[in-house]
Amino acid sequence: MIRVSIVGASGYTGAELAALVHKHPQFQIAGLYVSENSADAYKPFSSIHGQFAYQIDRTLIPIAESQIGKIVSECDAVFLCTPHAASVEWVAQARHHGAVVFDLSGAYRLSDLNVIKKYYGFDHKYPELLQQAVYGLAEWNHEAIRKADIVAVPGCYPTASLSALKPLQEADLIDSNVLPIINATSGVSGAGRRASLTSSYCEVSLNPYGVLGHRHQPEIAEHLDHPVIFTPHLGNFKRGILATITLKLREGISENQVNAAYASAYEGKSIVRLRQSWPSIADVEGTPFVDLHWQLDPQTGYLVVVSAIDNLLKGAAGQAMQCANLRFGYASSKGLI
Amino acid sequence: MIRVSIVGASGYTGAELAALVHKHPQFQIAGLYVSENSADAYKPFSSIHGQFAYQIDRTLIPIAESQIGKIVSECDAVFLCTPHAASVEWVAQARHHGAVVFDLSGAYRLSDLNVIKKYYGFDHKYPELLQQAVYGLAEWNHEAIRKADIVAVPGCYPTASLSALKPLQEADLIDSNVLPIINATSGVSGAGRRASLTSSYCEVSLNPYGVLGHRHQPEIAEHLDHPVIFTPHLGNFKRGILATITLKLREGISENQVNAAYASAYEGKSIVRLRQSWPSIADVEGTPFVDLHWQLDPQTGYLVVVSAIDNLLKGAAGQAMQCANLRFGYASSKGLI
Amino acid sequence: MIRVSIVGASGYTGAELAALVHKHPQFQIAGLYVSENSADAYKPFSSIHGQFAYQIDRTLIPIAESQIGKIVSECDAVFLCTPHAASVEWVAQARHHGAVVFDLSGAYRLSDLNVIKKYYGFDHKYPELLQQAVYGLAEWNHEAIRKADIVAVPGCYPTASLSALKPLQEADLIDSNVLPIINATSGVSGAGRRASLTSSYCEVSLNPYGVLGHRHQPEIAEHLDHPVIFTPHLGNFKRGILATITLKLREGISENQVNAAYASAYEGKSIVRLRQSWPSIADVEGTPFVDLHWQLDPQTGYLVVVSAIDNLLKGAAGQAMQCANLRFGYASSKGLI
Amino acid sequence: MIRVSIVGASGYTGAELAALVHKHPQFQIAGLYVSENSADAYKPFSSIHGQFAYQIDRTLIPIAESQIGKIVSECDAVFLCTPHAASVEWVAQARHHGAVVFDLSGAYRLSDLNVIKKYYGFDHKYPELLQQAVYGLAEWNHEAIRKADIVAVPGCYPTASLSALKPLQEADLIDSNVLPIINATSGVSGAGRRASLTSSYCEVSLNPYGVLGHRHQPEIAEHLDHPVIFTPHLGNFKRGILATITLKLREGISENQVNAAYASAYEGKSIVRLRQSWPSIADVEGTPFVDLHWQLDPQTGYLVVVSAIDNLLKGAAGQAMQCANLRFGYASSKGLI
Repeated sequence: MIRVSIVGASGYTGAELAALVHKHPQFQIAGLYVSENSADAYKPFSSIHGQFAYQIDRTLIPIAESQIGKIVSECDAVFLCTPHAASVEWVAQARHHGAVVFDLSGAYRLSDLNVIKKYYGFDHKYPELLQQAVYGLAEWNHEAIRKADIVAVPGCYPTASLSALKPLQEADLIDSNVLPIINATSGVSGAGRRASLTSSYCEVSLNPYGVLGHRHQPEIAEHLDHPVIFTPHLGNFKRGILATITLKLREGISENQVNAAYASAYEGKSIVRLRQSWPSIADVEGTPFVDLHWQLDPQTGYLVVVSAIDNLLKGAAGQAMQCANLRFGYASSKGLI
Repeated sequence: MIRVSIVGASGYTGAELAALVHKHPQFQIAGLYVSENSADAYKPFSSIHGQFAYQIDRTLIPIAESQIGKIVSECDAVFLCTPHAASVEWVAQARHHGAVVFDLSGAYRLSDLNVIKKYYGFDHKYPELLQQAVYGLAEWNHEAIRKADIVAVPGCYPTASLSALKPLQEADLIDSNVLPIINATSGVSGAGRRASLTSSYCEVSLNPYGVLGHRHQPEIAEHLDHPVIFTPHLGNFKRGILATITLKLREGISENQVNAAYASAYEGKSIVRLRQSWPSIADVEGTPFVDLHWQLDPQTGYLVVVSAIDNLLKGAAGQAMQCANLRFGYASSKGLI
Repeated sequence: MIRVSIVGASGYTGAELAALVHKHPQFQIAGLYVSENSADAYKPFSSIHGQFAYQIDRTLIPIAESQIGKIVSECDAVFLCTPHAASVEWVAQARHHGAVVFDLSGAYRLSDLNVIKKYYGFDHKYPELLQQAVYGLAEWNHEAIRKADIVAVPGCYPTASLSALKPLQEADLIDSNVLPIINATSGVSGAGRRASLTSSYCEVSLNPYGVLGHRHQPEIAEHLDHPVIFTPHLGNFKRGILATITLKLREGISENQVNAAYASAYEGKSIVRLRQSWPSIADVEGTPFVDLHWQLDPQTGYLVVVSAIDNLLKGAAGQAMQCANLRFGYASSKGLI
Repeated sequence: MIRVSIVGASGYTGAELAALVHKHPQFQIAGLYVSENSADAYKPFSSIHGQFAYQIDRTLIPIAESQIGKIVSECDAVFLCTPHAASVEWVAQARHHGAVVFDLSGAYRLSDLNVIKKYYGFDHKYPELLQQAVYGLAEWNHEAIRKADIVAVPGCYPTASLSALKPLQEADLIDSNVLPIINATSGVSGAGRRASLTSSYCEVSLNPYGVLGHRHQPEIAEHLDHPVIFTPHLGNFKRGILATITLKLREGISENQVNAAYASAYEGKSIVRLRQSWPSIADVEGTPFVDLHWQLDPQTGYLVVVSAIDNLLKGAAGQAMQCANLRFGYASSKGLI
């Protein structure tokens, strides 16, 4: 059994990850940790995440970065569900002690230090680790993930967007004179488990935010290798992301070419479901899947592709589990479906 | 025109009250205030409550209790949408300067100092004012409200509960050997406008809270003059309260007697609607009404009465407006329907 | 007082219209009607729309198209909240009897008979009336609406979209080589009041529909005079539409030019609110407003404009009321704010 | 492997059951059926329940009651997710062919023919089968279920209510002079998958229904062996039931006695979770559990017990699976946790 520790297990992503590991036939939980000053320190995990009462009976142990050596010595891999800035250091410390690390924050997803500074606000202290980190988009980087010691698990919006766009870009079908437009709506759990007026039940509605300046825009652009316009929205639901993407195909591209691009990209990849109807949040909520469907307007050459994921699963914990599966020699979807 | 000032106008109740005053033909806003250290100080009211953009263009002015004299001198009445403990003092200061005060907190609703201490945690410093305060249940205390200088506007659960129970108690129909059971569910706005994990979109579901110990239990019992079992719940909606009340009638009481009790209690009271079907939150949301419907089980003598209100209107701002109408010589429902 | 009759008053739009007329200082309800075979015939209006209990006490009278002469003789204007195909005939009959007609269906919004046939499925029998019909986008066609006898009140998506796009198109700011992308999400009331699996609580989530083939696409294109890509979505909320629109500006257009275009288009138009922050459904729900906000990406020349309306008000009943106000000599916003 | 067929697999309960069987290590799906005239006949199961796309790839086969012999011959057990009246006959036919039957309808839950007639409207044609049927409340009737050929799987409200009340009644703690009051709120899926105005997204709110006359009242009373007042409510959520139960204990009963009653009733029963905090729908949604918590008011002797279940799981498919586990020799919770 592969023993894993989860740092930041009091949050929604950490909890989902704990649940996935708990029911996985080849992995087991070594420990559930929270940061040193967490209000949840020493609380039973299931007192916070009541759905797991009597199932996952663990105490949330507070830990300082400097103590990570101890964690590392007692497990085979560390999952970090920690804030971006904190993860920069956690990853470095964990690597220093030889851990295989899966970081679910944005700390190691971008390669350009200036872009990191601009979008995350800090100077990344470990550029050499940044170069070693593999972007954990499981269906695309599986070979690299199998050998990686640092996996930067992608953001939720980038997972939804890249899953839809990469087949087209790889097949060179996109008219690069027109920017792909990504309109995505996320459930509130995307903002994490915290007291905040923005996430308050009475304040949540449907509205855009981070327009033309969201961190996931450069992440999508870098890993797609194509600029995009990305507009995120907050919607009144707990979990899930729906991304509606509109782009112009190169002159003369046919529907068959589009279909072929998707079919060949996702042949044998069971986490990606090429659906016969339009995706909806309901179909992916609580599942590890990406659902995709598309339609071409032959008159104008514009294509609409829609992608749906559970932001906490394929957009976070599920994909982290896929990466861990790959890294430890299992099928990507093991324990997930 | 009656000029009114609202202290605590950044909250949900304060905002509803501002809207009611704004559209009232006989009242006008003198000023909108927040407490001295409020994060909303000097913000435009409509930057917080966007639905009123371009309609209510006021700045939220911070104010200390000691400055209330200035407010009082510029208006005819003060509405307090302030925390319970703060209201104790605000009311006293406002009265000291001669204001007519409508307090929407719980500070002046109970008469027994020990009960206040037990349920609110503070020693009430102004027992003599407590005696002057009139409980603002508009349909029942209208005569006293017309002459009151301190109106303690009832809580949301008590309004829903008392509106349903008082006609029965006044007509002496309740079997006092069996406690009336009040099960009520409130929307999240009942918890006020604030950052809190409990009110977070992802955490809200449907669950009981404050079981056998909620502050509104003694308030209901005092103003009903009968003990009750009161179990509040938090539901996944923004506003509204539904109270389902089950009680045993005295031996031999007929449906006609029940019908007559309600009819005579609410004859000519247009804010109370005796409905022909079961109330729902949807029917009262955004309205000033109490909807009531009941059914007797002739086999057992148990009666089920259901009451629905908008917690921010009949449960707070709407009822405050009714009280102000009465106090200044208008029909209770003026400006409300 | 202007007396108006509403045909189709059992639906959500009809009910909102009844409420607007009811509280309007210059209009009054002459009659509330449903179609001949309606399941709601002879029901009290408020037994269906419980929020209006004791406020609007009218019976829903069933009526056949052939009887419209009687309705017309008893009122000054007729509002049709009837299905598209039915409205074609209702309008013709009402005009035959000399009525001023406000049609809230799609029957008279498009001018091209082939397009109507393609998107609505019927051959429009009254092309000469189609030519007389004025498109009731109140802020843009006010002069024509004042003199019109047939007003085709715009659809909900077109209202949200055109309000955002027309100022740019009129000012010639749009790069016509790139299609504006409209992504809009509507609440479930947009589908009308009816038993349907699609509208069932358990089935509603967030998903696109009518992709590249929705009726409102040609309506937007015709009245904008520019092709667009329009992708509607169904969201899990009762009312409201949020439209996020992304487009490319002509080379060299500055933010100032965009600001000026909006400012001059909506100077003095109180129903359109140029907001300082991103619109949300919450801010417009239950209001007659269109909220607009935009941001330019100077690097790429792309502009994101977001528009929010209440689909039942500015997207239907509210705009119909604006048109009626204009037609009968009142300010467009009279009785609405 | 135990092969099971599900009749009525297009509904929400049938779908959940299909999912449970699909992932169960000892059971497998023999066939998924719908009634003869179902609109879903010959549709792929996953075209209706999209969350199972690529997971459960079965076609919904239409079947008449007279053909059940064929189904029976190809499986070890039949699950009926059929309407009440239809189930009366389906069960009889299935038994005629020797099947082990788990009926999720109300057809075989009550023993008194008059009560059935009154609450279900039909004359039950098979009183002898009614006597053979075992009520499938898994934690209470496990011995009988192990040997039963007809299991009447309990209704959702009765499961929530009886799980909370039976320990008290068995321990003789209830004051029988005062009726236990059950207030329960169900998610909309309780009404089944069907087009209905009542279940429409725009109509769902929070309201009581079936007051003093719901079918589940006699079911609870019979299997509790004590009369109750049961008031169901419809809430604005998809799945789950929360039941808040208030009752009077016999004179002098202590909290310890209550605690002991629950502890001994549910010792070793892993599907029932005795929680340390109040249950919520969120904690049980998507799980097979019953969550229970209670509190005694020592002053009055009243006890509040709250029970939460997922109406489609413990309230239907999950409990059916528990019964099937027991009937075929497995632990009740096998495949469920």
